[in-house]
Amino acid sequence: MNKIKGRTEIAELGQFGLIDKITAPFKPQVKSTILGVGDDAAVIEASKSTAIVLTTDSLVEGVDFDLRYFPPKHLGYKAVTKGISDIVAMNATAEQITVSIAVSSKISVEFLEDLYAGIAFACKEAEVDLVGGDTTASVNGLVINISAVGRAKKEAIVRRSGAKVNDLICITGSLGAPYMGLKLLQRESRVLEGLPGEKPQFDGFEYLLERYLKPRARYDIIRSMAQEGIVPTSMIDISDGLASDLMQICRSSLCGARIYLDRMPIAKQCSALGEQMNIDPITAALNGGEDYELLFTLPLEMRDKVSSIGCIDIIGHITEPQTGCFLVTPDGSEIELRAQGFVKKSE
Amino acid sequence: MNKIKGRTEIAELGQFGLIDKITAPFKPQVKSTILGVGDDAAVIEASKSTAIVLTTDSLVEGVDFDLRYFPPKHLGYKAVTKGISDIVAMNATAEQITVSIAVSSKISVEFLEDLYAGIAFACKEAEVDLVGGDTTASVNGLVINISAVGRAKKEAIVRRSGAKVNDLICITGSLGAPYMGLKLLQRESRVLEGLPGEKPQFDGFEYLLERYLKPRARYDIIRSMAQEGIVPTSMIDISDGLASDLMQICRSSLCGARIYLDRMPIAKQCSALGEQMNIDPITAALNGGEDYELLFTLPLEMRDKVSSIGCIDIIGHITEPQTGCFLVTPDGSEIELRAQGFVKKSE
Repeated sequence: MNKIKGRTEIAELGQFGLIDKITAPFKPQVKSTILGVGDDAAVIEASKSTAIVLTTDSLVEGVDFDLRYFPPKHLGYKAVTKGISDIVAMNATAEQITVSIAVSSKISVEFLEDLYAGIAFACKEAEVDLVGGDTTASVNGLVINISAVGRAKKEAIVRRSGAKVNDLICITGSLGAPYMGLKLLQRESRVLEGLPGEKPQFDGFEYLLERYLKPRARYDIIRSMAQEGIVPTSMIDISDGLASDLMQICRSSLCGARIYLDRMPIAKQCSALGEQMNIDPITAALNGGEDYELLFTLPLEMRDKVSSIGCIDIIGHITEPQTGCFLVTPDGSEIELRAQGFVKKSE
Repeated sequence: MNKIKGRTEIAELGQFGLIDKITAPFKPQVKSTILGVGDDAAVIEASKSTAIVLTTDSLVEGVDFDLRYFPPKHLGYKAVTKGISDIVAMNATAEQITVSIAVSSKISVEFLEDLYAGIAFACKEAEVDLVGGDTTASVNGLVINISAVGRAKKEAIVRRSGAKVNDLICITGSLGAPYMGLKLLQRESRVLEGLPGEKPQFDGFEYLLERYLKPRARYDIIRSMAQEGIVPTSMIDISDGLASDLMQICRSSLCGARIYLDRMPIAKQCSALGEQMNIDPITAALNGGEDYELLFTLPLEMRDKVSSIGCIDIIGHITEPQTGCFLVTPDGSEIELRAQGFVKKSE
């Protein structure tokens, strides 16, 4: 590869390396900033006892979604989920969002009405207000930016950095389904190219599609945990994949981790489609991403309490930092986890 | 023009018509939402006496900026100004921002370092923290999204909707310079195309360039007004052009307006370049936009107090709603103001 003098490609650093490099000079200076860059959301002073949390996310056409198979209503819904999920991962209640869109001339008013119908549906379901936004022209493709604001008692805020050795590693719902849903949509899109009249074959895999096209943020879980008096020691939402997001917790909390393959919650439709398409469902669960499930840690003595909630699996435990992050297979062998990021999701 | 059945082009509605249409179903439901869509920023409950204001804006390559003549450091600075200016227009103090970027592979790490150096410079100057963001790949072009958060005592918040008949219409700084700066950059870029070695001719017009490339939000003015105990009845920042933004105030406040041509603060470099390039500097002042100056209204009795601040011109007054929005020329004739929006700024 030819390298222009003085030019470093973003790919050389990777997404996380790039973010570290460009955000390194920014240290909070303002009194009301409680937590700056480096978690699911920033934390800002609201009153003596409460804090506002703030997050922002972009969805880019051709990278995060493909309009050939992503219906606008679902896209609006998913954009809201992406924002809210970061707020939930701070153990806060999402209350407001803003939506900015950059639209090219290929987009019609009817398309945008559908997009905003999906946004409205997600807002209603999550009890969140749309309070602002911006509409800009774009030369190429649709870009959606969601900022979300939430609120919590200061002592309830959960960061990525609080995991302790021997803490339980917990996960909500199941993993891998959104990634397999995407693979299915891509396959059918390829097969049907140039065959107008033909219908895609989704039978038996509707769950995978729904998880990819219409994921729901797990605010139900943080409400249940609050009722039980459970405050995790650390938490993150799974957007980049279990491996990558667990490594973020370990990096922020300065610890290692062991998770066990036979405890991983993988939806059975993942295995069925994986067999058809020759995709390892474990890879989908570890590195697929966009699950919008919660990954969190809890003190050992919370085991019974958290088990009573349902929809939560204990998949491993936190270890000393020098032990690294590994997946343990049923025969006892250990596979080192690897992070991914900046992966082009659509083809 | 062929119209596909059931397809409405965005251009048919215009930017404001589109925003009205898609945001109409969204009415605030959450208790902490004090003000939703429709002002420079949303207002959210923080504590009994204070509110958080929140705004979001996107800058799209090829629409809002052209990388052939927009240096990355300036672009970062200007993006921050755009966000902060909306906060200032609510009479609030900006405290935090988030920056999301979508970057194509043509962008290098060095470019992003320069962009973030400009962001850091603007943050330091305005005493604002960068607290979060998102980095995504993009298929085509650079998109920057800024969300900004500010804070104010609830009673100090100024909306667009409070202007009263007979109120003075005030404006900070001068108008038209950023638009003329852009025109100059576009001219030199055209002239020099294919002439490597040649240098652009900017002599005498540096002020216009600085106003376009490195505009500063007017937090100095709201600080001075606070010291004088002045709270405007309505306020907006001039991003779309004086005409369009004054009409926004009139629409929100249900009133009309008269502004006087001979009181309009137009920088003298605007007139000089306008003559060279055959551009009417009044059009630049009325419809150019991106001035990031403040347009606000005040009760008549505040005339002396506001005049003592400096950098503020009284350009007209608020009238009854049925009288419309007009520019009055020195010979007494009245020209109806027209809004613009969604104009492709770069060529």
